[in-house]
Amino acid sequence: MKSSELIKPFRVTQGKDFRLKRIRPGDTLGLKDEFKKEARKHLEKNVARLTELQDKLYAQDQWAVLLIFQAMDAAGKDGTIKHVMSGINPQGCEVYSFKSPSTQELDHDYLWRSMKCLPQRGRIGIFNRSYYEEVLVVRVHPEFLGKQRMPAQLMGKKIWEHRFEDINGFERYLSRNGIIVLKFFLHISEKEQKRRFMERLNDPAKNWKFSTSDVEERKHFRDYMEAYEDMIRKTASDHAPWFVVPADNKWFTRMVVGSALIHALEALDLKYPKVDQNKRNELKAAKQSLDQE
Amino acid sequence: MKSSELIKPFRVTQGKDFRLKRIRPGDTLGLKDEFKKEARKHLEKNVARLTELQDKLYAQDQWAVLLIFQAMDAAGKDGTIKHVMSGINPQGCEVYSFKSPSTQELDHDYLWRSMKCLPQRGRIGIFNRSYYEEVLVVRVHPEFLGKQRMPAQLMGKKIWEHRFEDINGFERYLSRNGIIVLKFFLHISEKEQKRRFMERLNDPAKNWKFSTSDVEERKHFRDYMEAYEDMIRKTASDHAPWFVVPADNKWFTRMVVGSALIHALEALDLKYPKVDQNKRNELKAAKQSLDQE
Repeated sequence: MKSSELIKPFRVTQGKDFRLKRIRPGDTLGLKDEFKKEARKHLEKNVARLTELQDKLYAQDQWAVLLIFQAMDAAGKDGTIKHVMSGINPQGCEVYSFKSPSTQELDHDYLWRSMKCLPQRGRIGIFNRSYYEEVLVVRVHPEFLGKQRMPAQLMGKKIWEHRFEDINGFERYLSRNGIIVLKFFLHISEKEQKRRFMERLNDPAKNWKFSTSDVEERKHFRDYMEAYEDMIRKTASDHAPWFVVPADNKWFTRMVVGSALIHALEALDLKYPKVDQNKRNELKAAKQSLDQE
Repeated sequence: MKSSELIKPFRVTQGKDFRLKRIRPGDTLGLKDEFKKEARKHLEKNVARLTELQDKLYAQDQWAVLLIFQAMDAAGKDGTIKHVMSGINPQGCEVYSFKSPSTQELDHDYLWRSMKCLPQRGRIGIFNRSYYEEVLVVRVHPEFLGKQRMPAQLMGKKIWEHRFEDINGFERYLSRNGIIVLKFFLHISEKEQKRRFMERLNDPAKNWKFSTSDVEERKHFRDYMEAYEDMIRKTASDHAPWFVVPADNKWFTRMVVGSALIHALEALDLKYPKVDQNKRNELKAAKQSLDQE
């Protein structure tokens, strides 16, 4: 299956008519569980191709790529980042995990902590959670707004609409300045989340991953799904598409995410910088100088 | 003269019909040079009032203020910042001077270096030059765009239009999040600039302020005025007004800038945080505990 075919059903660039229920968390595009081994090979191939593309991205030093991962707990954000990105040169890739904001961060506008971490040209930046939490967890728990110390008159009814508009404007700005934005929502089912939580509770090696607050948040699963759907409807765009990736099968998630990244990199005009006559002369002189040592 | 009267002629919130020639660099609203001494008193009063307002701003910790200064060389940015802001608590005020971007900064999107320096809630942030250089010096010298390592296809004809749009969106975002943006263009005449340059050349104590490149840039004075005019036309707004301040007379410039800042702070609902019953009980207990020592 070509990467374009793999990602097409999950790529959202126009949110208006998007409905979350259209994408099943268990979807594998008909690929059976037996395909798992094949999927591993596919992933390996992806990683090799990615390494090649990233090397050019870095050498050309003009474009940057920002990958944003959002999901419910246990949907596989960490694992996906690990498996899709392992093998690429860490010098050209930075991962930022955004946890609950610190006091200092809350004292700033909400994009501040993300803006600081935007990737340089030639780099891939990964946000494990992001400013989208501002229209997810903060929307499901509006009491968090209070902690942001916003003047009361700025917390009106239109706040979510404004945040969507501002985020869209911000991402359009990024795209105009050479930062490719790809956004991934790893879409897990309530049932599969429960299974993975249980696994974390039962397997001592996975205990550390479990937090009681995860179960608390699970109670708001439906509210979150509504918030996710609205977020995707309002912020999917050609310049910053959302990929709603079925996440009940890890091997499938990774295949789709890897393919989406490769697809986006291949669409760029990545090439090693050309060496012009001046530079060629410089190289020649350097060679002579070394020869004469 | 009330502060509102002082600033009204120079405050631009709707750029569409703005023309730079409407404001004379030598304008003093009819106040004569003899008024200079009076102006100093006015400034002192302003500084005292500012100190008071800033103290509340800091204690309330909800709003932030961003002052942006743009001007030709020798128009008095440094002096204005020094005289208007001296006396206020430096803990609540940070000044950032943006020089030619570093290699690291050029490797990022152009707002990156400014975003990092945005003021926290409760603070006044001052940008001595700013992201507006991206539509000023970069516009007058488009060859600087090359240094920004932007992919070629993103440097089309619409680049300035896009930058204005993105800056507007960015400032609207700031205003929605409690950051008051006030932008000052200190408008000096070509003639007065020459006089001040001469002064810098003739006075050994001012020699250090002179740079040969200043005279180079002076050759582009008219291009700069066109770029400034267009910038003000495209980025003046209610939520982030431009103040086009006559700058041939330093005392007048300072009076206007100080008044604009005070006027903006007075429009906020600044007050010391209220102490509620719980807190009052805490204070009482603390007092008792100290009494019993």
